[in-house]
Amino acid sequence: MPSYTAPTKDMQFILHDVLAVTKSDIPGYQDLEADFTNAILEEAGKISSGVLHPLNMVGDTEGCRHENGVVYTPTGFKAAFEQVKAGGWPGLDMPEEFGGQNMPYVIGTAVGEMFSAANQAFTMYQGLTHGAASAILAHGSDAQKATYLPKMVSCEWTGTMNLTEPHCGTDLGLMRTKAEPQGDGSYRVTGQKIFISAGDHDMAENIIHLVLAKIPGGPDGIKGVSLFIVPKVQVNEDGSLGERNAVSVGKIEEKMGIHGNSTCVMNYDGAVGYLLGQEHKGMRAMFTMMNEARIGVGMQGLAQAEAAYQNAVIYAKDRLQGRDVTGVKNPDGPADPLIVHPDIRRSLMDQKSFAEGARAFILWGAMLIDQAHRGGDAAADGLVSLMTPVIKGFLTDQGYDMTVQAQQVYGGHGYIEEWGMSQYTRDARIAMIYEGANGVQALDLVGRKLAQDGGKHVMAFFDMVKSFCKDNSGSDAEYDRDFIEPLKNASKDLQAAGMYFMQNGMKNPNNALSGSYDFMHMFGHVCLGLMWARMAKAANAALADGGADAAFYETKLMTGRYYMARRLPATALHLSRIESGADTVMGLDAAQF
Amino acid sequence: MPSYTAPTKDMQFILHDVLAVTKSDIPGYQDLEADFTNAILEEAGKISSGVLHPLNMVGDTEGCRHENGVVYTPTGFKAAFEQVKAGGWPGLDMPEEFGGQNMPYVIGTAVGEMFSAANQAFTMYQGLTHGAASAILAHGSDAQKATYLPKMVSCEWTGTMNLTEPHCGTDLGLMRTKAEPQGDGSYRVTGQKIFISAGDHDMAENIIHLVLAKIPGGPDGIKGVSLFIVPKVQVNEDGSLGERNAVSVGKIEEKMGIHGNSTCVMNYDGAVGYLLGQEHKGMRAMFTMMNEARIGVGMQGLAQAEAAYQNAVIYAKDRLQGRDVTGVKNPDGPADPLIVHPDIRRSLMDQKSFAEGARAFILWGAMLIDQAHRGGDAAADGLVSLMTPVIKGFLTDQGYDMTVQAQQVYGGHGYIEEWGMSQYTRDARIAMIYEGANGVQALDLVGRKLAQDGGKHVMAFFDMVKSFCKDNSGSDAEYDRDFIEPLKNASKDLQAAGMYFMQNGMKNPNNALSGSYDFMHMFGHVCLGLMWARMAKAANAALADGGADAAFYETKLMTGRYYMARRLPATALHLSRIESGADTVMGLDAAQF
Repeated sequence: MPSYTAPTKDMQFILHDVLAVTKSDIPGYQDLEADFTNAILEEAGKISSGVLHPLNMVGDTEGCRHENGVVYTPTGFKAAFEQVKAGGWPGLDMPEEFGGQNMPYVIGTAVGEMFSAANQAFTMYQGLTHGAASAILAHGSDAQKATYLPKMVSCEWTGTMNLTEPHCGTDLGLMRTKAEPQGDGSYRVTGQKIFISAGDHDMAENIIHLVLAKIPGGPDGIKGVSLFIVPKVQVNEDGSLGERNAVSVGKIEEKMGIHGNSTCVMNYDGAVGYLLGQEHKGMRAMFTMMNEARIGVGMQGLAQAEAAYQNAVIYAKDRLQGRDVTGVKNPDGPADPLIVHPDIRRSLMDQKSFAEGARAFILWGAMLIDQAHRGGDAAADGLVSLMTPVIKGFLTDQGYDMTVQAQQVYGGHGYIEEWGMSQYTRDARIAMIYEGANGVQALDLVGRKLAQDGGKHVMAFFDMVKSFCKDNSGSDAEYDRDFIEPLKNASKDLQAAGMYFMQNGMKNPNNALSGSYDFMHMFGHVCLGLMWARMAKAANAALADGGADAAFYETKLMTGRYYMARRLPATALHLSRIESGADTVMGLDAAQF
Repeated sequence: MPSYTAPTKDMQFILHDVLAVTKSDIPGYQDLEADFTNAILEEAGKISSGVLHPLNMVGDTEGCRHENGVVYTPTGFKAAFEQVKAGGWPGLDMPEEFGGQNMPYVIGTAVGEMFSAANQAFTMYQGLTHGAASAILAHGSDAQKATYLPKMVSCEWTGTMNLTEPHCGTDLGLMRTKAEPQGDGSYRVTGQKIFISAGDHDMAENIIHLVLAKIPGGPDGIKGVSLFIVPKVQVNEDGSLGERNAVSVGKIEEKMGIHGNSTCVMNYDGAVGYLLGQEHKGMRAMFTMMNEARIGVGMQGLAQAEAAYQNAVIYAKDRLQGRDVTGVKNPDGPADPLIVHPDIRRSLMDQKSFAEGARAFILWGAMLIDQAHRGGDAAADGLVSLMTPVIKGFLTDQGYDMTVQAQQVYGGHGYIEEWGMSQYTRDARIAMIYEGANGVQALDLVGRKLAQDGGKHVMAFFDMVKSFCKDNSGSDAEYDRDFIEPLKNASKDLQAAGMYFMQNGMKNPNNALSGSYDFMHMFGHVCLGLMWARMAKAANAALADGGADAAFYETKLMTGRYYMARRLPATALHLSRIESGADTVMGLDAAQF
């Protein structure tokens, strides 16, 4: 069975050596002393390794059951959920007013990585609740907040997002679910929603469904969509539970992975619902959840890659097979361990350099969100909005590829379920799809985010990279060669791609959109390149200080050099694909496929 | 449920327009007139679509059962196997002397693609038998051939390959299974073998296991390994079935995919076996099977990609979602079909240009095998030996990626098992692992095949590409720009990588081996680039002839242009990774991971 150890040391390095959180003026960051964050991370690490991870394979093997209208989670989930709740983890970064601990999002994100890595399917119950609570927090009336948030922040009640219908996913304007006003402020919601994660289960006494629906007579298409709160069990005025609402589970879907999460078909048969936010402004309210969810999903890509990587390392050190071509390394054994072989190293370095770079990227993104939300910084808000599709699309694509590489290290055993490596790839696969398939992320990035606010956020990004390179070059020739130069080159490629879009996208938008996927990936590489340059700078500084952990920082530098030398040059390939334009992409008629 | 239509027209194009089989002097090729090959391919296509494919999801869902020592295949497999046998398909390219039809391997390969695309798990029962029969054909005594081949060519008896043990896969020198001579010419085989595809089942009255084992007292390691024939049921002198042999199924493995194939743990408890070939020369005999199997596995990569692609196209034409950004395409519907969107096109073109290029590559490889085996051409033998790891490693990696892309086109439905797209990725995943994990293929290519016979095969490959470019440029500027120039550039990159290995691999072999995986992929791209240049040439010639199928040839040209513009430039990235050397790959100590 696989194991999982939370990368607390690496997180501490990013929070303190790289992001220097306590020196930030973001409200609440001054409290994030190293000892304090370490205590939280260590505790979260313990519950991840000791409680959540042992249930990961159980959830995969058992899955959820739907019997006589009741959905049962796998053995052990309920007890573990109680432990998570008792530890106050669901409310970690939620307002104190509703029972939360008011920690910054960056801390919630670090803990979220651990929980997801240990057990993605399990952690989704809590993650969806967090997203739904955030939407109520942002768009709910005071009464709605008072009714739902205390219970959701504690996860006594969980939450869901209901967007997709059988015939429409991305294009929600096609939606058929309707909400008819009852004259008393409530609505009756009728329709079918599919792919509802955590749609029903036995771990909470109530489930608060957030449901997109159309109010009859409203505008056509996406402009007529509103968001509703539809509780599984109705809530009385005094907060006690009332009647069962007219919402039921059609079935649990048989999926490729995340079997421990109940993905439900939900049927609403005139269920009582309450408008959340304004009529016909449902998409705006939903996007509060979706943006948060997209960053959370990007984090899942990293989390599965990290967990799979840890096990690939263990196997590569343990499994004896063949001899080191440069000289026997294990003379007393019948063969050397896999890890002596260069191609195994290549694979492990791909994985390691991705996971550590992605972790820095995600935590930086989370810090920008804190800067925007807690600090009211519009520039940070614009930057993280620009990078959200990159975080979601790039990290989940790459994260998936890394789980496939980790599985490959196991050879034939990687294909056998009892070894657990297949589950990492099967679970990681969903992250490329949900919360907007990655092609949609690329479209969002190139079709919307690049030009947002006159393109000022992407210009700010380029300026930031440029300033970083300028401010940090010229004093250390090795650092310049290994980090600054590759970052400059990659950033130049990204700018050239942006320039190509500007020059060619106006006459034919397909010239831009045919390159959107490549652009998303090259943007991701530049972000990871920037993070590696920042991490290497921090590692060099720590080494110059002569601290105790030289081996940690040396490892960091070598891993960074690998990324810069072996992964970052992918930007040139993406650029050449982009610059080949739309002609070959769009050249065929549909009938020619 | 997915569907499958055999690409007979594309195969005909490759066989006749590109490879010009009837003009070849390979014995048997003169009979391969277009009408004749078309009749075979159409018939094979019918059984693929009508018999094998409808059982593909059945096999995945039901899997195999092991009850009271008996292994049961999924519902319908047995009847389908009878149909395949009745059609004479298993013996298609086997000698007439043993009941086969003596067709060239290139025809067997084309039919094999269809069968694998329609139902990989099912087709493996027949594929393993073919491999085992080939080994007996090449290394068996006349008596062994007479005893086993007629039954195996017809698939009345099936075959297996038994290499892996729990503690050793790639490094077979660590093997523990032993074979003790009984003084009467027979041996007693004792040990455990794992991952035995088609290890036991209910579709044949006997199963002929080919088992690697060590004869006590022989040389250590791989040099002491011999190959044995171990029938499940012993065969009497008169050919009738005798006693049950001491071989049994330990269990059926729970795998990520190919559930319809029984992957068994096999226990040999003093089972009666017969030496195949010479004592201690087992690896040589096994390689007869393995080389054939590796090409067959490469073909599986293509086959799953093709099947998944076909369904992605159907879905992309059918599913309405969003509007074409350049103008509404389906004004009478609520939205346009997915296929109008550039990023969906990019994905479909990746898939299409891969599948068609890979098909040409595989059939060209099969033709080289015919040239070597039927024509006794040593140069062809050397070339295909060089390319075998490329066919296996590149086509299965890329084929897998294409199934993931096809699944992605389905959005959320791609993750739900009932839509069938998850099965393509789960089934395709094994091909990257078995018959030598792809890292081992890369090692074989760079560590062994490049330098084989003084490097003359790789030089011959480069000369061939160079001659092709020279002979076919200068008369059509568009063809030169779209096909010849990209091919020249990619081939130059590949040569530069080879040069880097020569200059740096001598002082440190890790400089070569750290780049082996990239080299395998760039080699694959150059091969597909060459095939696309050849296909484009053939399409241009057909268009110049003014035949009836202009749309087919125009599609071919556009698809080729896509590959050359968007996929082939990957060689530059692989080269830059290779030229970064071993330092960052090997820089960490094992403890630093």
